Amino acid sequence: MAHHHIPQGTITSPQGFSAGAVFADIKAWAVKPFDLTILRSEVPCMMAGMFTTNRIKAAPVILCQDRVESGKAQAIVANSGCANACTAQRGLADAEQMATLVARKIGVSAEDILVASTGVIGTHMPMDRIESGINRIELMPDGGHDFAQAIMTTDTVPKEIAVECEIDGKTVTIGGVAKGAGMIHPDMATMLCFLTTDAAIDLDFLREALRKSVDLSLNLISVDGDTSTNDSILLLANGLAGNDTLHNNDEAADVFQSALDYVCIYLAKSIARDGEGSTKLIEMTVEGARSVEDARNAARTVVSSPLVKTAVYGSDPNWGRVVAAVGRSGAEVVESKIDLYLGELCLMQAGRPLPIDKSEAEELMKYEEVIFRLNLNLGNGEATAWGCDFTEEYIALNGDYTT
Amino acid sequence: MAHHHIPQGTITSPQGFSAGAVFADIKAWAVKPFDLTILRSEVPCMMAGMFTTNRIKAAPVILCQDRVESGKAQAIVANSGCANACTAQRGLADAEQMATLVARKIGVSAEDILVASTGVIGTHMPMDRIESGINRIELMPDGGHDFAQAIMTTDTVPKEIAVECEIDGKTVTIGGVAKGAGMIHPDMATMLCFLTTDAAIDLDFLREALRKSVDLSLNLISVDGDTSTNDSILLLANGLAGNDTLHNNDEAADVFQSALDYVCIYLAKSIARDGEGSTKLIEMTVEGARSVEDARNAARTVVSSPLVKTAVYGSDPNWGRVVAAVGRSGAEVVESKIDLYLGELCLMQAGRPLPIDKSEAEELMKYEEVIFRLNLNLGNGEATAWGCDFTEEYIALNGDYTT
Repeated sequence: MAHHHIPQGTITSPQGFSAGAVFADIKAWAVKPFDLTILRSEVPCMMAGMFTTNRIKAAPVILCQDRVESGKAQAIVANSGCANACTAQRGLADAEQMATLVARKIGVSAEDILVASTGVIGTHMPMDRIESGINRIELMPDGGHDFAQAIMTTDTVPKEIAVECEIDGKTVTIGGVAKGAGMIHPDMATMLCFLTTDAAIDLDFLREALRKSVDLSLNLISVDGDTSTNDSILLLANGLAGNDTLHNNDEAADVFQSALDYVCIYLAKSIARDGEGSTKLIEMTVEGARSVEDARNAARTVVSSPLVKTAVYGSDPNWGRVVAAVGRSGAEVVESKIDLYLGELCLMQAGRPLPIDKSEAEELMKYEEVIFRLNLNLGNGEATAWGCDFTEEYIALNGDYTT
Repeated sequence: MAHHHIPQGTITSPQGFSAGAVFADIKAWAVKPFDLTILRSEVPCMMAGMFTTNRIKAAPVILCQDRVESGKAQAIVANSGCANACTAQRGLADAEQMATLVARKIGVSAEDILVASTGVIGTHMPMDRIESGINRIELMPDGGHDFAQAIMTTDTVPKEIAVECEIDGKTVTIGGVAKGAGMIHPDMATMLCFLTTDAAIDLDFLREALRKSVDLSLNLISVDGDTSTNDSILLLANGLAGNDTLHNNDEAADVFQSALDYVCIYLAKSIARDGEGSTKLIEMTVEGARSVEDARNAARTVVSSPLVKTAVYGSDPNWGRVVAAVGRSGAEVVESKIDLYLGELCLMQAGRPLPIDKSEAEELMKYEEVIFRLNLNLGNGEATAWGCDFTEEYIALNGDYTT
């Protein structure tokens, strides 16, 4: 591996990034240390972003989608507690105002500020508390961990990482932080992910690298199948590592891409593992699909299936649910060709159920990571998706969120 | 209304149908009175059927799909406890054998027997117990209610109905029975629905009428979004009412269609209301969609959303989840045009959240039927879908089903 994982790394591990956070009383439902935060780069960054496919988009998503065209930014302001979604014109004005307040604070143009929000849909931002909160934030080079805590909602642990790799003899660092649980929670746990690097990168390559990594990671997780109005992934590259600007055909492009893949997959698995109420991670690999798209659809359908998720929760090796989910995924399927494995235990071979030792299968279902592999034996398409089990705790958490 | 609901009506209410059921020890997990049943018509019937869209299809579905081409049948054998899905060649042979055993018992060709199964996927039919069970069944003109009980799995109540209408001065009766919870439970609660009528009906019209009714009813419910391998809807028409054969352009076709719609919607709502672990029915009407397809997708996405379902369970008027689900449904949506109502209470108008009396909204969420209506204001497409709330009981039921 051409990169290594930095212990306790954060989004401020790459050179030239600082962050800070405060509690601004936006997230009224829980006592959390912070709910408003800023990430800043000393110098302007190249920037790439990806956003929810939901046709109802939160105001900060609309703002960022507009900014992302320019490919540059210098800071991000993010809050938890209020999603600023379904808030019409006033919501857009509030998001713009958040950018303006941060721009004024750090002395750059409002055009260079990105905004991200997560929380309840359909309520307006408490702009007075946002304004005083922004004014109170102190930016520090080791503020990444505070940032990670400030964007948490129902997350039980912060999700952050940094890795180093070498490009042109220079040490390049990539940091990442995420919250929430996938494309998946429309109000209380909208997925936000922020990535930083000090690499110097050509904008076209930056966009392409982000798309590739996200397709292997954050686009292959599911907690409950509900795509959020606020999902946002933003990647800032400030160039302070001093490498020659990376382009997509450079030899070192692979080093950067694989480090970025590692960061995104780590964060994706962290989100899936910490899905609301979950106790286990589900990993589903689909091989031998007619296309990569088929493999992706099949794998993601399985990890999204409530019946697979409840069976994993109950350590019930009810593998017919996995096959049934693949069957409804839209992927091309020939039942008589399917092989299915739980860990290394073969459950179905060429479409025939094998006699299995049920207690062995139950043991495999009790691990904290339950791993299925299904070969469609139709082609070379392969994908791995991640999800979590479905528990009573999920119901309880979501049954009385706003009340 | 040109038809009326017969009190305590069943699938043997139409003339010339009889049914019977026994317990054959297939459904080991629960003590239920019956798990194997036969429905028979005295005379050959015109027959129409619709089946799961899952690419993994149970053996009895494959058998019925083959038989449905002929458009005729005289009896149905159904069991709960074993789905006979993912059972390869042996499963197909078992389904054929069930048809043969019933054909021999009632003295018709095996080609005229339909087979339906529901239960665990990936286990073989206990053919010895099936054979002795079929031999023990006694067919009676009032056996419809036993049939309804025999196909239940996790259903808490049987779901059956009969209505009468007048065609050509003759009384025509339609009976219906269903079990399970939609397109929705791949193993323990596969959806089965059987419809009978004594009307004389042209086969083309019979097929068209079934498709229309099912599209308004059973194709618009959801319990958990998991499409089963066994879903089957079968409609038998034996012509004993003595009306002139109905064709699709006849004046009386509308009378029959609306009676059949009523039966199917009644059964669909019964299934949704009795979804596993549910305490409430959710009714979602989408109006003003660009197309009927958009309205259907939007309505069904809302009633399938785990976050909407948990909010309904908790009587939490967290309506942003409804709008977010519509946004991810694929339907064309312009946020600034949306109106949303909970019962008669307007929550959002032209995309703006209205200040509401939260306690009033909470009261409306506490009813056993929680009714949302959303107008997209883009066209004339309209559809209503039904679902149920999501509870801890669903998790408990599905976490340890086979173990």
